[in-house]
Amino acid sequence: MARTVLKFGGTSVGDLDRIANVAEIVAARAAKGEKMAVIVSAMSGETNKLVALADGAAGKDLPRSLYDDEYDVVVASGEQVTAGLLALALRRRGLKARSWLGWQLRLKTDNSHGRARIMGFDDSSLPDSIDSGEIAVVAGFQGVTDDFRVTTLGRGGSDTSAVAVAAALGAQVCDIYTDVDGVYTTDPRIVPKARRIDKISYEEMLEMASLGAKVLQTRSVELAMNHGVPVRVLSSFVKPGEESPGTLVCSEEEIVEKQVVSGVAYSRDEAKVTLYGVPDKPGSSAKIFSALARAGVNVDMIVQASSREASKANLVFTCTDRDSPFARETLEGLQAEVGYDRIEVIRDVSKISIIGVGMKSHTGVAEKMFTALSEKSINIDVIATSEIKISVLIAAPYTELAVRALHTAFGLDAD
Amino acid sequence: MARTVLKFGGTSVGDLDRIANVAEIVAARAAKGEKMAVIVSAMSGETNKLVALADGAAGKDLPRSLYDDEYDVVVASGEQVTAGLLALALRRRGLKARSWLGWQLRLKTDNSHGRARIMGFDDSSLPDSIDSGEIAVVAGFQGVTDDFRVTTLGRGGSDTSAVAVAAALGAQVCDIYTDVDGVYTTDPRIVPKARRIDKISYEEMLEMASLGAKVLQTRSVELAMNHGVPVRVLSSFVKPGEESPGTLVCSEEEIVEKQVVSGVAYSRDEAKVTLYGVPDKPGSSAKIFSALARAGVNVDMIVQASSREASKANLVFTCTDRDSPFARETLEGLQAEVGYDRIEVIRDVSKISIIGVGMKSHTGVAEKMFTALSEKSINIDVIATSEIKISVLIAAPYTELAVRALHTAFGLDAD
Repeated sequence: MARTVLKFGGTSVGDLDRIANVAEIVAARAAKGEKMAVIVSAMSGETNKLVALADGAAGKDLPRSLYDDEYDVVVASGEQVTAGLLALALRRRGLKARSWLGWQLRLKTDNSHGRARIMGFDDSSLPDSIDSGEIAVVAGFQGVTDDFRVTTLGRGGSDTSAVAVAAALGAQVCDIYTDVDGVYTTDPRIVPKARRIDKISYEEMLEMASLGAKVLQTRSVELAMNHGVPVRVLSSFVKPGEESPGTLVCSEEEIVEKQVVSGVAYSRDEAKVTLYGVPDKPGSSAKIFSALARAGVNVDMIVQASSREASKANLVFTCTDRDSPFARETLEGLQAEVGYDRIEVIRDVSKISIIGVGMKSHTGVAEKMFTALSEKSINIDVIATSEIKISVLIAAPYTELAVRALHTAFGLDAD
Repeated sequence: MARTVLKFGGTSVGDLDRIANVAEIVAARAAKGEKMAVIVSAMSGETNKLVALADGAAGKDLPRSLYDDEYDVVVASGEQVTAGLLALALRRRGLKARSWLGWQLRLKTDNSHGRARIMGFDDSSLPDSIDSGEIAVVAGFQGVTDDFRVTTLGRGGSDTSAVAVAAALGAQVCDIYTDVDGVYTTDPRIVPKARRIDKISYEEMLEMASLGAKVLQTRSVELAMNHGVPVRVLSSFVKPGEESPGTLVCSEEEIVEKQVVSGVAYSRDEAKVTLYGVPDKPGSSAKIFSALARAGVNVDMIVQASSREASKANLVFTCTDRDSPFARETLEGLQAEVGYDRIEVIRDVSKISIIGVGMKSHTGVAEKMFTALSEKSINIDVIATSEIKISVLIAAPYTELAVRALHTAFGLDAD
């Protein structure tokens, strides 16, 4: 008895016509004997509308601790509506179906309203319902705390709901239907020769997702990796018979032909902060980065370079552009205590990354990257590396040029 | 520790400005030390929008048994949104507040989706929450079945939610805030001299409500009567300091000055059905009315008058105009079996009623009614009476004239 999980995002259920289309996709798969849970997002635009209402009711000065739990109550209603509508659309086609809300599934989360993390399922009758041939239409994005309050999982949280349900059901595959037909080697809007990737490892997908390839929520990939759930990215915007195989996100072992570099990602939401003349004594860095953490600034790359002055060093780090004013404010408040000379914040920068599990066993990848960039006269500001990723910070106007150069250099261009 | 229940209907929470206004009303009462549960409807227009979506998803041919449960899931989301928004609007004003959904309250109903009846409360922490000074903002109109499915209570069901919560909390009063400032002696659009009633008994209110004075849902009045909950009808559309005392719906014993007639009600949605020449033998009526009941036709007044022919009688009854085509169809199918001569359906009729607990102890009320109508040359088609009500069926064009004549005749006109 093959259990599968399908997930449809906001644009895939954007109006009654799109919901009817989803019902047809589900019906075609039900006809093949699949036992399904179908996770749905809110109709596109609904979540933004609900957020605007919640913001309007709360005003600007309400602290998050008094906002997030009721925000969740308001916003979770969007997925509830879609779940009911799809259940009706399936019944209209003669299928057995019912909706499931987060609290009905007992999809338990922590208390971090607005960005809750799934803690697990309590016992629910979902598996029995599915096995009996009833299609479970699950409201994504939502869960419930131990004290029965509604939570939501953060933007893109329906992906995570889908993977969690797939893990709980021991599903063979979790199909994420969206408005693109898979994960691409890079952004096709920048590189028309970008190719759809057939298979990509969880690790690579994590790097892609966290770097701005917004096909899957990062946490959904983590969860899939931890539970070994194969995730497939598919388009719901194709005619029957014209389906693409999509992109399978799976464990590295299942990928026979490993690419050295699988994709090129970029992020424009970056800022580079330099502290000049930080006294070279123990504890300076700890002071700086713990203050930034307290201020909620998410620090990414960190480089420390020695200064010409013997006793002082320059400290460089990156954070999101959005966080950079808070970073500046925090560090200015720390100047007397730490004793650095001056601070510089450059906001017009981009991060370009190449990602590939093949890097682990190949040398010369970094050199090839730097050469490709230097051939286009692109200056590299900061470099950071991991086992399967090399990232560089460059001036933002060079973003497209750099992405195209690297896509070609690593043989990713479509024929 | 005085517990009170407040309820705000759809127009009272129609947009963020109206919700802010409700928050001000609640805040003013909280400042006086009241411990409150506030029941809210969906923002006006939302329920209709959600119903249209559910209808669109289900199509026209889905039987109600496959529709109503998911309809409830979709439609209940409207009250959920308002509950979250009002909780936020109250917190913005420095008050402690939280939202409660039907399933969180464990407001148990039967399985009659779309028109469920409240069976009672399971134990919930609502009373403790209120007594601790936290305002409970309750999503009206919704409940939950024993097997944890969402139900709704039918149109106007938030009134019933409010009375049920008031009964469960032993609240001193259940204040129904709406867009009118009370219950009137008749429809002020027809009689400008209509007066707001200060106190009205549950029994009278039931007759008024079931006769089309749409201020309160009939079932909410029944529930209030059964549990002895005083209900007050108030306007949320007044400026602070200009509040009207509204209308108190309470037990007859609490009304010292009993009016012979408290109000004049009318209903235009009526049809008169006459079966001519029904054989005067046992079982004819039983056959006719059980067939009508099976067809879902709600029969109201019934009169049987003997015909000139000895062995046959004419049977007259009324039903809603909307039901009258089904009544005709049902009865035409029964003609051979019952053996009546012909059927006549007159759809252009109105029912006019006078209501008052004082009738129980006063004679001459009917005569006064018939005289007032005959003075205006209004012909009476059918008469029906109960202990506290006399209803007559008349030709629809005379509706306003009849209502005005009776309002004056029974001394109800304002000075």
